Amino acid sequence: MKLLLINGPNLNLLGVREPQKYGNTTLADIEEDLIKLALSNGAKLECYQSNHEGEIIDKIQSALGIFDGIIINAGGFTHTSVAIRDAIAAVNIPTVEVHMTNIHSREEFRHISMISGVSIAQVVGFGQKSYEYALDGLIWHLKQIKDIDLEV
Amino acid sequence: MKLLLINGPNLNLLGVREPQKYGNTTLADIEEDLIKLALSNGAKLECYQSNHEGEIIDKIQSALGIFDGIIINAGGFTHTSVAIRDAIAAVNIPTVEVHMTNIHSREEFRHISMISGVSIAQVVGFGQKSYEYALDGLIWHLKQIKDIDLEV
Amino acid sequence: MKLLLINGPNLNLLGVREPQKYGNTTLADIEEDLIKLALSNGAKLECYQSNHEGEIIDKIQSALGIFDGIIINAGGFTHTSVAIRDAIAAVNIPTVEVHMTNIHSREEFRHISMISGVSIAQVVGFGQKSYEYALDGLIWHLKQIKDIDLEV
Amino acid sequence: MKLLLINGPNLNLLGVREPQKYGNTTLADIEEDLIKLALSNGAKLECYQSNHEGEIIDKIQSALGIFDGIIINAGGFTHTSVAIRDAIAAVNIPTVEVHMTNIHSREEFRHISMISGVSIAQVVGFGQKSYEYALDGLIWHLKQIKDIDLEV
Amino acid sequence: MKLLLINGPNLNLLGVREPQKYGNTTLADIEEDLIKLALSNGAKLECYQSNHEGEIIDKIQSALGIFDGIIINAGGFTHTSVAIRDAIAAVNIPTVEVHMTNIHSREEFRHISMISGVSIAQVVGFGQKSYEYALDGLIWHLKQIKDIDLEV
Amino acid sequence: MKLLLINGPNLNLLGVREPQKYGNTTLADIEEDLIKLALSNGAKLECYQSNHEGEIIDKIQSALGIFDGIIINAGGFTHTSVAIRDAIAAVNIPTVEVHMTNIHSREEFRHISMISGVSIAQVVGFGQKSYEYALDGLIWHLKQIKDIDLEV
Amino acid sequence: MKLLLINGPNLNLLGVREPQKYGNTTLADIEEDLIKLALSNGAKLECYQSNHEGEIIDKIQSALGIFDGIIINAGGFTHTSVAIRDAIAAVNIPTVEVHMTNIHSREEFRHISMISGVSIAQVVGFGQKSYEYALDGLIWHLKQIKDIDLEV
Amino acid sequence: MKLLLINGPNLNLLGVREPQKYGNTTLADIEEDLIKLALSNGAKLECYQSNHEGEIIDKIQSALGIFDGIIINAGGFTHTSVAIRDAIAAVNIPTVEVHMTNIHSREEFRHISMISGVSIAQVVGFGQKSYEYALDGLIWHLKQIKDIDLEV
Amino acid sequence: MKLLLINGPNLNLLGVREPQKYGNTTLADIEEDLIKLALSNGAKLECYQSNHEGEIIDKIQSALGIFDGIIINAGGFTHTSVAIRDAIAAVNIPTVEVHMTNIHSREEFRHISMISGVSIAQVVGFGQKSYEYALDGLIWHLKQIKDIDLEV
Amino acid sequence: MKLLLINGPNLNLLGVREPQKYGNTTLADIEEDLIKLALSNGAKLECYQSNHEGEIIDKIQSALGIFDGIIINAGGFTHTSVAIRDAIAAVNIPTVEVHMTNIHSREEFRHISMISGVSIAQVVGFGQKSYEYALDGLIWHLKQIKDIDLEV
Amino acid sequence: MKLLLINGPNLNLLGVREPQKYGNTTLADIEEDLIKLALSNGAKLECYQSNHEGEIIDKIQSALGIFDGIIINAGGFTHTSVAIRDAIAAVNIPTVEVHMTNIHSREEFRHISMISGVSIAQVVGFGQKSYEYALDGLIWHLKQIKDIDLEV
Amino acid sequence: MKLLLINGPNLNLLGVREPQKYGNTTLADIEEDLIKLALSNGAKLECYQSNHEGEIIDKIQSALGIFDGIIINAGGFTHTSVAIRDAIAAVNIPTVEVHMTNIHSREEFRHISMISGVSIAQVVGFGQKSYEYALDGLIWHLKQIKDIDLEV
Repeated sequence: MKLLLINGPNLNLLGVREPQKYGNTTLADIEEDLIKLALSNGAKLECYQSNHEGEIIDKIQSALGIFDGIIINAGGFTHTSVAIRDAIAAVNIPTVEVHMTNIHSREEFRHISMISGVSIAQVVGFGQKSYEYALDGLIWHLKQIKDIDLEV
Repeated sequence: MKLLLINGPNLNLLGVREPQKYGNTTLADIEEDLIKLALSNGAKLECYQSNHEGEIIDKIQSALGIFDGIIINAGGFTHTSVAIRDAIAAVNIPTVEVHMTNIHSREEFRHISMISGVSIAQVVGFGQKSYEYALDGLIWHLKQIKDIDLEV
Repeated sequence: MKLLLINGPNLNLLGVREPQKYGNTTLADIEEDLIKLALSNGAKLECYQSNHEGEIIDKIQSALGIFDGIIINAGGFTHTSVAIRDAIAAVNIPTVEVHMTNIHSREEFRHISMISGVSIAQVVGFGQKSYEYALDGLIWHLKQIKDIDLEV
Repeated sequence: MKLLLINGPNLNLLGVREPQKYGNTTLADIEEDLIKLALSNGAKLECYQSNHEGEIIDKIQSALGIFDGIIINAGGFTHTSVAIRDAIAAVNIPTVEVHMTNIHSREEFRHISMISGVSIAQVVGFGQKSYEYALDGLIWHLKQIKDIDLEV
Repeated sequence: MKLLLINGPNLNLLGVREPQKYGNTTLADIEEDLIKLALSNGAKLECYQSNHEGEIIDKIQSALGIFDGIIINAGGFTHTSVAIRDAIAAVNIPTVEVHMTNIHSREEFRHISMISGVSIAQVVGFGQKSYEYALDGLIWHLKQIKDIDLEV
Repeated sequence: MKLLLINGPNLNLLGVREPQKYGNTTLADIEEDLIKLALSNGAKLECYQSNHEGEIIDKIQSALGIFDGIIINAGGFTHTSVAIRDAIAAVNIPTVEVHMTNIHSREEFRHISMISGVSIAQVVGFGQKSYEYALDGLIWHLKQIKDIDLEV
Repeated sequence: MKLLLINGPNLNLLGVREPQKYGNTTLADIEEDLIKLALSNGAKLECYQSNHEGEIIDKIQSALGIFDGIIINAGGFTHTSVAIRDAIAAVNIPTVEVHMTNIHSREEFRHISMISGVSIAQVVGFGQKSYEYALDGLIWHLKQIKDIDLEV
Repeated sequence: MKLLLINGPNLNLLGVREPQKYGNTTLADIEEDLIKLALSNGAKLECYQSNHEGEIIDKIQSALGIFDGIIINAGGFTHTSVAIRDAIAAVNIPTVEVHMTNIHSREEFRHISMISGVSIAQVVGFGQKSYEYALDGLIWHLKQIKDIDLEV
Repeated sequence: MKLLLINGPNLNLLGVREPQKYGNTTLADIEEDLIKLALSNGAKLECYQSNHEGEIIDKIQSALGIFDGIIINAGGFTHTSVAIRDAIAAVNIPTVEVHMTNIHSREEFRHISMISGVSIAQVVGFGQKSYEYALDGLIWHLKQIKDIDLEV
Repeated sequence: MKLLLINGPNLNLLGVREPQKYGNTTLADIEEDLIKLALSNGAKLECYQSNHEGEIIDKIQSALGIFDGIIINAGGFTHTSVAIRDAIAAVNIPTVEVHMTNIHSREEFRHISMISGVSIAQVVGFGQKSYEYALDGLIWHLKQIKDIDLEV
Repeated sequence: MKLLLINGPNLNLLGVREPQKYGNTTLADIEEDLIKLALSNGAKLECYQSNHEGEIIDKIQSALGIFDGIIINAGGFTHTSVAIRDAIAAVNIPTVEVHMTNIHSREEFRHISMISGVSIAQVVGFGQKSYEYALDGLIWHLKQIKDIDLEV
Repeated sequence: MKLLLINGPNLNLLGVREPQKYGNTTLADIEEDLIKLALSNGAKLECYQSNHEGEIIDKIQSALGIFDGIIINAGGFTHTSVAIRDAIAAVNIPTVEVHMTNIHSREEFRHISMISGVSIAQVVGFGQKSYEYALDGLIWHLKQIKDIDLEV
């Protein structure tokens, strides 16, 4: 089972700035932990971060035929990118949406997610833990998928 | 550590109807599993379900001074109940919002959650697993809370 | 054929107040007439009224496996209750929506019905007669349902 | 008692196309049945259909002083025609609005009815039966009108 | 100078119904008076009324090269007809919009006029007098047009 | 019969600026002509102009018991002043709204008039002529008012 | 003179939580003071609190024929309950709306009150004092009502 | 304790017009009564009325350092004046908003108050009594302010 | 293969007026060219124009069982006619929408097309050429339709 | 070169209140500095402040033929005054809009400026410095205006 | 004549995924066909695809002075990119907008095109054929442009 | 003091195209002038331009710990980029927003700036001068920042 973690714009600053919001763990720390967690569940996780919408689309497209699932925190692109939404729909790989903070209780323009409509699930507000649950849930989903179809 | 799980209207029908959406596990099965999971994390979980908005408010109020955290799937009340929101805000107990399906990709009136603004986190779309992550995350949050304040 | 009539908040005041809007027939009178009308069509009608959203949800849920059709005048809950809508959808019993007055020509907040999306039909504006047509139509629908599917 | 049934655009295709929505009964069949039903209630029903908004307005105007009640299914004009609304208001003849399907659960632009504000009642979703209830209700209304005013 | 007066749907009922709104003068009376008024100003007025949007469009088109100005009370089509607007724009003949009642203080859907954007002026609320001012103003406008362009 | 003409902000610039929109007639010229026109109809017209909302309100209030009708071009206050609207409603004197240009085909914020709802009529787009029709119509209205009530 | 005070959801927590918003006086204290205040004005006040919308509706209905006036702080139901609004309208007893905090300067969803449209008056923002003014004003209103009708 | 009462546009007409809405008491009567009431509470009340937004702003500014509290009924300016709002915010004197009628049940444009966001409380619908409660509440607030901060 | 070209209101003025927008080719010229183009592709094209919504609906209905495809430029009806939309949906014949100008860069009310939702394709902005591409595309579509379904 | 600086409501309080927002420099200080700055650029600056919308309009009108440019901070009138906008448009003198704070990051009702549409430029957020840049930019603009037209 | 074809995000997946929507022809196939088609019309077509908004902007800018026309399918950027719109406006090269599917009958957020306002024409819904018509139309337009200006 | 100037999409075309909007000065000219201006104020200015949103985010991030202030004209990204907004918020460096034209008087979609909420100030409409004022103001701000906090 091969999984892809995609982090969007400004998430490379994790642990560098605004620790009161995200903790002082760096993105590298999170990725390392998630890779281990994936391995312990028999899955291989590749981690990718970019501030470029186009690169994220390229990456999602490159997952076609290679990855079984995607975890994505599209950062600021979450609320605006029809193109990332289309890429996820096009590769048709089960995708889980993650946010470290509770976007539903921040500015109104953060309440809309272009990603939600093409995701199976969403975890928000648990900081680094959000990624762990997304990873665990995605693996669980991929195992379940043969028996019952839980997707919307 | 004492935790309270509240399920709102129609969630008592889990496993009874629409298994293609929620699986055929009953709410009793889920509660039993969650109670075990809580215990294995050193927490005591009390489970409650009601189709009555007023009873849910009563229950949330009764948590004051007794419970350390709340997990809530307010069902259809999620989108309309200012009163449940006020109850959560009033008791000021860390609360995690759960939905089995991805409400963000269903009818538009389900995209708004009155609960989100007073919750620390939200897990949606993983079916029964949504509860497990909510529980695990809430326990993790309550342990972390002394060191860093992750709440919004 | 077993049918359930549910009347929501304030409909117990029929015949007691505002006769210029609803006539001076009481809800008991209406229920009695409808029970007779049902019987004359070979159906058994149970009547229920509550001012409590939760009790109405409980009642709808209890119809599962017992009743063949539901007639509902959800009163003020018509315009706000996602939870009643979810209950009707969950039990998946053919439901007809009734209103004594023409809600489409009253205040704007009464133009939206959360019930409509999960009902097969709607009768409004005929006072007590609205119920009779709803009952007759529901029975007709249940008889027809084997041949052609008229539901939306 | 003289009544006028007006059917708007595309209702002449009933029974010809989309039987899964409207049944395979033709408009002529429905009209014939309704004329009989009217007669059995001591009323004379004239039936009219047009795809032309202007002709429908002409017809409504011509009802002035001749007809006691109108039943109208304005089809697609329901949602857009201020002019038909004005015609009904101008002749001031009690009018019942009919739709075979439940317009309230179809596309959003079908939820608005320009006719509702000038009608006494609305029956939707019962297929051909919608007309029967509208007819019966209109006759009942015209008989009642001397004693109590049930209109909004 | 040749002028065309167009009255839209239901204005043929003037003097026939709702005298408390429009007075008991018939449309024929108004037209007769306006023809005289036009003549006394050296203009020839042709009067036309139709309940059919298409016929009104045909009439406006037929004005091309024949009439110097148009006075229009499009009735209910005022608020909905892009096609009448397009016809006026296409023939490019100075047009004055008239309404007998003050549409700006009636239902909200009457506040929008599709005609206004292609008219030079609008007179509302003076009953029959609205037509007289529109006629007088149009003649004045056509005389002025050589010197100063007062149109928007 | 005593009438009051009120012109609001910037109308004192008439004839001074933007003649392509308003002609090069000054406000004084217009007022002079209107006073004559009023006299020839047996009415006495007092003219007032102010750029101050408060002064316009004072003036309207002072009309109470003295003037029989008001003609008002409230200029930019037309679209925003609840207080002028309230003043007109409070003195309850028949009022006609005037605009020299066709406000309905200018910027969207000019389409709303706070004055319309408390006026009997509105004349727009005829430049100086708008005032003449408003004056004539108001006098006609005041004469008619004893027989038929034409107001909305 | 018999008066009914109804407090809605979460108001039973007064004095228990969030004293910075509501003071540390309990609801029992407030009720006791109000009962005395009522008595000193020759009125008998019955106090009721519930977190259940249905119970509040039941209570309002039970006031029919017994109570002369109602004071209501519907808490979170204020902004959503068509059914409570309908109940107040149905019993047709003069009602005053109260809020301890200034709801007009809190979240936008609190700016709308379903109760206002069926109330004679509203007092907000004076904490416990809001109730006293509501009580005094209601009594004053009930005494005045015979002479002048001050209701909207 | 020095208090300032400000009445905005058209409130000088109280008792002069529309007694069915405001009673036949004049503003002078109300002011006289309030001055006495203030005195009996150990406060000195200065009363001011203007139809001019600018004068009201001047008056509010002049209160700086002189008055301890403000009672304002801004009339029609309530719904539109950012500048009055800014003045109240700038002088930062506790302010209570008053309306004699229940603005929340009148036209929709009266539901928005620019004043609410900078006021501590609002009393509406009690006619002259609204002022008395506002005065009493403001005095009570100013006395309480040392102990608990009840402001929003 | 039989095809039907329908042109709506004001398109009969092509080549007669506003040549800067549509060229000076008349509708007859365009129709002649399209008939030839159709023939050269083995298809027979019938051309129809009307300013009457009802006649266009009649024509679309008459296509049932006779025509294989429809090309429609509904002119001003494009943006308002639910009835034409319903007619196209009812006959269920592949339909292509055409506009000579780029409606998406004109007034906002022209951006909405009621026809789009029941069309397979739309060509706008190429003047007369728009029709040629629509015709060619429709023929291509009808040939392809057996192999792959390209419709939405 | 003669320039006019207009400050609207509450800006006379600068340096008197809320120094954390505007600094403790008074408006007189700012005006004095700006007059010097103007002089050093060969321009004569007249300064004016009023809390009265009408006086500001009078002042703008009086600039006609006398001043070459206007700098305006319309304070709270910025967001509501069509009349000030009209005055600026009427005198047609190049105008620069100034705000000391960043209005675009304050309450939503401050995001709209009626002045912007008739201004050449806008400087916000630099406190007193905003005026200096506006002045410098206006002088630069007036010098450039002969060569290139930079206005919108 | 040199033309540029730009395909935006995810269009490189054509023929690779979702053949039921786009056919199994690859983008390379389409480009090859279009190059031939261009040549047969005496034009040279350069083809470009990118998932990166910035690269598309770079490409459009690079067209300045080199290409005579642009065909663009901006994919998901169609609905959001002000920057691509600005680039097209800046280079001022005639541009045709293409979509393979009928975007007007898909999700609502796809109904808005930022490109339309700066394009001469739009072809949607014909799959690969959309490009052919766009190419043909663009060439035709560029040839016509000397005689008549067809652009909006 | 180190400052960073960031210009977004299409600003590299300055002086190349549309001189009537931006003058014929190239971006290189502007940057050169600004670097000199910065030096004369004791600051070092680095200039950067990109059409790529991702590169702009990278650049802003790279400013962390190196630059003291940012001047940004985000071009078309101004109105859509949550990600650039987040980057500015994340690095928390005082930022000034610049536009050469008055965006507040152009298309409505340009009135919204995602950048404003995280900027201290905004200068628009002065062409090249906008940058100079932004630079001067930023330097002034950075010098002031130790004494008074002027930021919103």
